[in-house]
Amino acid sequence: MTTLGRFSVVQATAAEPSLGCTIALDAMGGDHGPEVVVPAALRYLADHPHISLILVGDETRITSYLGRAPRERLRIHHATQEIAMDESPSKALRNKKDSSMRVAIDLVKDGEAQACVSAGNTGALMATARFVLKTLPHIDRPAICTAVPSLHGHTHMLDLGANVDCSAEHLFQFAVMGSELVAAVDGIARPKVALLNIGQEAIKGNEQVKQAHEWLVRSNLNYVGYVEGNGIYLDDVDVVVSDGFVGNVALKSSEGVAKFISQSLSAQFRRTLLTRLAGLIALPILKHFRRTMDPRRYNGASLLGLRGIVVKSHGGADEIAFENAIRIAEKEIEANIPQRIGDQVGRHLASEPYKESA
Amino acid sequence: MTTLGRFSVVQATAAEPSLGCTIALDAMGGDHGPEVVVPAALRYLADHPHISLILVGDETRITSYLGRAPRERLRIHHATQEIAMDESPSKALRNKKDSSMRVAIDLVKDGEAQACVSAGNTGALMATARFVLKTLPHIDRPAICTAVPSLHGHTHMLDLGANVDCSAEHLFQFAVMGSELVAAVDGIARPKVALLNIGQEAIKGNEQVKQAHEWLVRSNLNYVGYVEGNGIYLDDVDVVVSDGFVGNVALKSSEGVAKFISQSLSAQFRRTLLTRLAGLIALPILKHFRRTMDPRRYNGASLLGLRGIVVKSHGGADEIAFENAIRIAEKEIEANIPQRIGDQVGRHLASEPYKESA
Repeated sequence: MTTLGRFSVVQATAAEPSLGCTIALDAMGGDHGPEVVVPAALRYLADHPHISLILVGDETRITSYLGRAPRERLRIHHATQEIAMDESPSKALRNKKDSSMRVAIDLVKDGEAQACVSAGNTGALMATARFVLKTLPHIDRPAICTAVPSLHGHTHMLDLGANVDCSAEHLFQFAVMGSELVAAVDGIARPKVALLNIGQEAIKGNEQVKQAHEWLVRSNLNYVGYVEGNGIYLDDVDVVVSDGFVGNVALKSSEGVAKFISQSLSAQFRRTLLTRLAGLIALPILKHFRRTMDPRRYNGASLLGLRGIVVKSHGGADEIAFENAIRIAEKEIEANIPQRIGDQVGRHLASEPYKESA
Repeated sequence: MTTLGRFSVVQATAAEPSLGCTIALDAMGGDHGPEVVVPAALRYLADHPHISLILVGDETRITSYLGRAPRERLRIHHATQEIAMDESPSKALRNKKDSSMRVAIDLVKDGEAQACVSAGNTGALMATARFVLKTLPHIDRPAICTAVPSLHGHTHMLDLGANVDCSAEHLFQFAVMGSELVAAVDGIARPKVALLNIGQEAIKGNEQVKQAHEWLVRSNLNYVGYVEGNGIYLDDVDVVVSDGFVGNVALKSSEGVAKFISQSLSAQFRRTLLTRLAGLIALPILKHFRRTMDPRRYNGASLLGLRGIVVKSHGGADEIAFENAIRIAEKEIEANIPQRIGDQVGRHLASEPYKESA
């Protein structure tokens, strides 16, 4: 596992923090396209003097949002096509070879950028990234990983929807990838890894989860066992592993509850004149609280297991949220995530008997 | 579907509201046993003059909690064994034939009670209820169903963990059962039924979900299509159907987020003297809000698809929560749920071509 061909594009290490690194942005992706991506890029450049950005997409539209802004460390890479948010991933892959998304990923493959960020169609992004960049050796399927706030700070969850039917091998690979990501970006030597299950007892769960559990118990990972859904937010764990269907539902259910609680609480404070007054007094606290919980602070999901760095921003992201996705891409460049995951997965799969008992 | 042998025990209909109906309570189940179940029973009896209760379990312990309370419409049925919360369901089924849980279910089978409520081990309750009461014709597997609060009032979710690997047929059966439950207990003529998925587009999801979707589109149910996790709380749907693994994770993730938000918000109000003062002023609103969200108001999950009524209370339920579980059992008796589900499932499976395309 020392020769990972395409890794020549990812030279920076944690010791040499991203000197002069370049990130390609899919300027046309997401619900808002260049209206959000261009100002987010400008803000990011202003705050990060060592970063260069490439805005990929329709030059005329991008230029119109750029206005008279300084273009230092910023260039436009024209692309003639766009991928719609509801377009079929396979069709996008086949017919949209000059789409902003595809070209941004091509730039990573060609070494012109060290990472790309897109708020576009998740399925198309995953399919294109996988086709163009390829998966790392020993990785069957890339996974989508993001951090969510929790009582002890935050927890990384994966997979969040790239894979709807996962085998125990896939779950094991996700555990290794998640552990390595968190070790690198959060600086935790041995992240606590847990498997998402419907009970903490050994008898619970489906066969894939039980088999992955057996392998993880015998692995070198800091595996802490099963967590239930509430454990994502309440338990002291760093990485929660699940198949993509389950992880997606867990994440979106959580978002739904948070929104429901927030709306219901606001309604309570609006009920009468007295409650409105109380609301005014409580407002600074509620605002501070909302900032802590702000989903924009957690925007940016990593596509792990690829031979390059791809970060997915939420389709509805605003400037602040999109900036956060760029920040995640930068962190992954600094930490040299694909190389680290490649090395670790190789080491785990070589040293662990996980294939033998399959 | 007119002869459902065991249904002779469920005579009450919505038109004749549970005159003289009897509910058996597993007095030893849950984290607190008779300490919670006995006072909950006494409170329930005081408020519901047409209900009789049977407390099943250790007579000495039950009696000690009864004290000098009047025992009108209340009797104790002694049982010598208890099932531990972490006991294997199969062992409990084999070795605990005189457990409070088993005897409470036996009382339903024998017609001495029209429903039973237990806060005990979920797996053992499901296994025992299935063994003793049997499933309805055409139902392969019973499902666990509960209501959760939502923006439009509440939503019923099933399955919540009884079945970890569900086929499309199972999902279809759950949809019929959930629809029928909600029609009966909420008085909604055609409840809106949705399938839980990881996207609203037809291409998303696993094979089971896609196949169940096809059948549901062609069914007589008021099927509204896919919802994502957030839809449970935000969309205008009455029933959300999923396999038990996914449903369990969705529910518990939601509980985790709610607890996390509640604790974080409390911490914000405790930060400084000023925030504490603001907290005091906002306290009545926050309290009112917590009451609206109080999980105790939603305590009580129905085991659907059986030839009898069994309600599972949360293991950690307090008196108020346990009372709510008894209330659900009473509602199901009034609505004659097993008979209704039996009739509807038969009708749907007879009229729908869902087996043909399998």
